[in-house]
Amino acid sequence: MLRLPLRRLGSSAAALATPPSMTASASSGARLLLSRGAAAISARRAYSAKPAASTSQLPGIEPSKLTITETTKPGTLPPHNELVFGRAFSDHMLTIEWDESQGWQSPEIKPYQNLSLDPATCVFHYAFECFEGMKAYKDKQGRIRLFRPDKNMERFNKSAARIALPTFDQQALTDLIAQFAKIESRFIPDERGYSLYLRPTMIGTQKTLGVGPPGSALLYVIASPVGPYYPTGFKAISLEATDYAVRAWPGGVGDKKLGANYAPCIVPQREAMSRGFQQNLWLFGEEEYVTEVGTMNFFVAIRNKETGAKELLTAPLDGTILGGVTRDSVLALARERLAPEGWTITERKYTMKEIADAAAEGRLIEAFGSGTAAIVSPVRTISWHGQTVQCGLKEDEESGAITTQMKNWIEGIQYGEEEHPWSYVCE
Amino acid sequence: MLRLPLRRLGSSAAALATPPSMTASASSGARLLLSRGAAAISARRAYSAKPAASTSQLPGIEPSKLTITETTKPGTLPPHNELVFGRAFSDHMLTIEWDESQGWQSPEIKPYQNLSLDPATCVFHYAFECFEGMKAYKDKQGRIRLFRPDKNMERFNKSAARIALPTFDQQALTDLIAQFAKIESRFIPDERGYSLYLRPTMIGTQKTLGVGPPGSALLYVIASPVGPYYPTGFKAISLEATDYAVRAWPGGVGDKKLGANYAPCIVPQREAMSRGFQQNLWLFGEEEYVTEVGTMNFFVAIRNKETGAKELLTAPLDGTILGGVTRDSVLALARERLAPEGWTITERKYTMKEIADAAAEGRLIEAFGSGTAAIVSPVRTISWHGQTVQCGLKEDEESGAITTQMKNWIEGIQYGEEEHPWSYVCE
Repeated sequence: MLRLPLRRLGSSAAALATPPSMTASASSGARLLLSRGAAAISARRAYSAKPAASTSQLPGIEPSKLTITETTKPGTLPPHNELVFGRAFSDHMLTIEWDESQGWQSPEIKPYQNLSLDPATCVFHYAFECFEGMKAYKDKQGRIRLFRPDKNMERFNKSAARIALPTFDQQALTDLIAQFAKIESRFIPDERGYSLYLRPTMIGTQKTLGVGPPGSALLYVIASPVGPYYPTGFKAISLEATDYAVRAWPGGVGDKKLGANYAPCIVPQREAMSRGFQQNLWLFGEEEYVTEVGTMNFFVAIRNKETGAKELLTAPLDGTILGGVTRDSVLALARERLAPEGWTITERKYTMKEIADAAAEGRLIEAFGSGTAAIVSPVRTISWHGQTVQCGLKEDEESGAITTQMKNWIEGIQYGEEEHPWSYVCE
Repeated sequence: MLRLPLRRLGSSAAALATPPSMTASASSGARLLLSRGAAAISARRAYSAKPAASTSQLPGIEPSKLTITETTKPGTLPPHNELVFGRAFSDHMLTIEWDESQGWQSPEIKPYQNLSLDPATCVFHYAFECFEGMKAYKDKQGRIRLFRPDKNMERFNKSAARIALPTFDQQALTDLIAQFAKIESRFIPDERGYSLYLRPTMIGTQKTLGVGPPGSALLYVIASPVGPYYPTGFKAISLEATDYAVRAWPGGVGDKKLGANYAPCIVPQREAMSRGFQQNLWLFGEEEYVTEVGTMNFFVAIRNKETGAKELLTAPLDGTILGGVTRDSVLALARERLAPEGWTITERKYTMKEIADAAAEGRLIEAFGSGTAAIVSPVRTISWHGQTVQCGLKEDEESGAITTQMKNWIEGIQYGEEEHPWSYVCE
């Protein structure tokens, strides 16, 4: 991703009167000092507002100030085979409030409980909300491990800043999440493939309807014990390429983990499901670039038309793609472990036609989605303009070799079977 | 707007197994029967998922079932000069719950109160939220009037359907809102320019983290007494054209009143304000088409280069523009009352360069934003690529003639001074 120099910063700020009915919070303004980088999408225009992390002098998140209130009604971990993603939650939640005059307040771990919010609260009206998805794993020694929490924290901060929510010290929040995971230890099933899904969330809590930066916010983390995405082994999915709706665009917010990116995806996904497909595949532009699948990143393994070399392809982080932690992990492992075997690992724009051509010419080796929920999700077919593109699996196969390999490598690290710097032991 | 025939509906729905961990709600599926129209954005692709209104047989919104619980702590209307948009609220709120098995439940008017929601509720994570902005006015006879509520209800339904929230009977909700406004009568200041701002809101309330259509929702309406946007008369604003961030895209949701469209606009708006501008002007594409200003639609009056004829221009409803009720009203009044005076009224794509050229050649007559808050908002200048485009106002003028005329016409109808079918008397 090309970085362009900052442009037009610090131009004159003539004190023009703000119309009096404009929200006070909108004009209270300079809470975050912003700078602006830009990703080059085209030769001519530089897109995307990229606020830097807060340089505020207000108090930051302070793990030493954590207070813990234990539940008086401890729950139980449901039987492993009854776990459904995000439906049952652990006993406690981690909360940290913020406001523009006092900064981050003392973190609390307290019984899981409802939020009580004024109906005018800005999260209900203007989608001031962003989140992360990560997991806590139990290794064979009973230790609790996180997987690359630094990547989640970095993205969480970028998401927050993009919608004028406060930023925070990444290590401080990681520490608190680790403490929270340890307190909820008994909700982490001690079986490979199982984990405690962690959902850090930040919402704007200002209770006025003026459209402006929230003057207060709540950061919270809840946790849900989950089983493997494919409890009886991989089951390849079929995709429908969506050409009538667009998930993200240059200069938009598709690379941030904002609530705003999710609700609009449901109808296209439901349409795909109504025709028998498990997920939709998001294309972009007249060229029909392949971007993401449902809520996962997408990888395809092909043989190069000219050289015959094996190539693992995924779309580049051009501002329209969510920078998945699993995506990054797949790329890094592929570069470390597949490249020596002759694979080329490429982040570049590629079109649906390119995939269809590769399939037609017998050059499509395999395809898979990647994300925190499934790690990798093998793809059997893509429906596109009435044709069914076969993605390399034989009829009796549910996963390709690279897909299976990636799952095993990543799971091995997540569960501490392979010692690796990506695994963060909660001490 | 061209309508294309439905495509590819009802293709085979082979019963492929859904991976077990995919949310149950996502696969519970066929609550809304969807059809798909499409707006032609380009010759080649038809964009935008357009779900039809619900054809569900579940109970709809039933005004006759309304229950009213009056507050025991009645508040008071703040002094007129202390009213700030969306900060103080009336005594009560209207609420209607919905769930996928029982449909719409009995409407309630009850004391204004906090919402108590599980932290896993989908509105906090995936932005299942949409809203409307409308006002109740008191006429000289003390009657309460709404302005074109049918337009708000129609758009509210379209917004809800686009994010898989339930739709409703539009007249039923209008009836309830009228009853609510009458109950809150003492919060409607009886002075021209003042009103009770009404905020119908719908949120998804399902409390699971699976990404799928919400199985439950809450529709509520809160009310805030507001004063005129310009209490001491118009004050022209200055805009900064934003070229580094993009509000909406063909195939996206920029034409719906979703929370998702608002949070991402704050940073660009704050950037503009930090440089002394009141609002930003959203451009689109390499061509730099003019789309909207801040959270208003945008109009510009120019003299045609060839014919010299006066032309009132605004961007067309191509899927990237919010279809404002005020925008529609300005267009209708202009066609009725300005066209006979020789004006051409045009909805078409136009570029920032076209405006700058008109200004440079003395052909830019005036420019204004339109929206429920201000009705119309005169524009003095637009900053664009380092140049300041003067929008036709003399130094001692705060509004152009058309802008002033529009405000007077619309306000006259809103306050019942001109009898007009757009004014809905709450009987």
